[in-house]
Amino acid sequence: MTTPPPAADRLDQLLIALRQFTRERSWEQFHDPKNLSMLLASEAGELLQLFRWVRNDESDAFAAQADNRRRIEEELADCAIGVLLLADRLGIDLAAAVRVKIELNRVKYPAPGAREE
Amino acid sequence: MTTPPPAADRLDQLLIALRQFTRERSWEQFHDPKNLSMLLASEAGELLQLFRWVRNDESDAFAAQADNRRRIEEELADCAIGVLLLADRLGIDLAAAVRVKIELNRVKYPAPGAREE
Amino acid sequence: MTTPPPAADRLDQLLIALRQFTRERSWEQFHDPKNLSMLLASEAGELLQLFRWVRNDESDAFAAQADNRRRIEEELADCAIGVLLLADRLGIDLAAAVRVKIELNRVKYPAPGAREE
Amino acid sequence: MTTPPPAADRLDQLLIALRQFTRERSWEQFHDPKNLSMLLASEAGELLQLFRWVRNDESDAFAAQADNRRRIEEELADCAIGVLLLADRLGIDLAAAVRVKIELNRVKYPAPGAREE
Repeated sequence: MTTPPPAADRLDQLLIALRQFTRERSWEQFHDPKNLSMLLASEAGELLQLFRWVRNDESDAFAAQADNRRRIEEELADCAIGVLLLADRLGIDLAAAVRVKIELNRVKYPAPGAREE
Repeated sequence: MTTPPPAADRLDQLLIALRQFTRERSWEQFHDPKNLSMLLASEAGELLQLFRWVRNDESDAFAAQADNRRRIEEELADCAIGVLLLADRLGIDLAAAVRVKIELNRVKYPAPGAREE
Repeated sequence: MTTPPPAADRLDQLLIALRQFTRERSWEQFHDPKNLSMLLASEAGELLQLFRWVRNDESDAFAAQADNRRRIEEELADCAIGVLLLADRLGIDLAAAVRVKIELNRVKYPAPGAREE
Repeated sequence: MTTPPPAADRLDQLLIALRQFTRERSWEQFHDPKNLSMLLASEAGELLQLFRWVRNDESDAFAAQADNRRRIEEELADCAIGVLLLADRLGIDLAAAVRVKIELNRVKYPAPGAREE
């Protein structure tokens, strides 16, 4: 994995687009935190559905097929949208929350044979 | 919602941190797409668990309490990590996928009384 | 709730039908415990999807509408099938497991003002 | 699979126990269909969590280990309870719904080389 990370975009620009989309449809009324947690989990369930009969060792090849890839991209985007909408509703700085969680995980799961700084 | 979006960070920097964390633990072997779809769905299930007995109209207030907020942030970060890891494994440009999905949703759910360009 | 419980059937008869259905299609090969846990969670996600924009206090009325009810019945049946297939694969006596769990819950959540026998 | 199915119990007796447990705690107020769909999905997420890093071809052996088996039984029982509570709330005859769904699946997925009656 020496290639540069593929995603180079700012979360705030995605949020601006999502806020506009929501506002145009007056959907803020449905986007309370409870409902958004259901949105995210149901979209994660759709992603799960794509992989449920695929073997572990065949799942990379499965995901590489054009039709499967397109569906995975759509479901994964839906999950990302769920995450972003909930973070935005609650005023959570998602990037900061992810960085904090990675640090918590560093403590919880120390790297073997490695000095953690 | 006139405040600027709270998250202003680049997805690629989060991916760099996640890749390093994964590599230090030799966890790439577990991170095939099938397993990552399970990671995401199980983390989404934990988020769901926090809200399952909370009423819609009380869920914003619930999420604002310090203890609840901390747990929601952790679970939401876990979901974001699941999304990012899967996107990275499959070489999916997450920001692009989200933008594409928003456009698809614009067609699927036209805004009422608004001319969509 | 003075009416008799609506479900009066034996789990073992459902299992016999499910085993036959699975065997006729040679689907045992896909029904390892990992995959069945994904089946169950993805079906639970579909059920979730039906209710995600419905308010708590409107969800009974929502579920009573004929079309919604039919879809809920189908999704709930899929979840039940997931539970039954996994129990059967692992040789778990589901009814016994449920009774044990109810007893564990009695200890974990004592009934207020009630002497538990 | 020539052994008799392991579960030989009546769904209605489980429902009686669940109704009593719920009533003793006055939890009917929380058990609207929306919340119960979240209960089921979050419990399915916990089951998923147990299997997320286990390979397909190792998941039967994993589930056979005593500690894992005990946890799987507990989580599966929780899922079964979620299914039963929702069926009961909506007056759905779960056994009938399962039989109907098996018949629908027979049509949707015809058995190869077999005449379906």
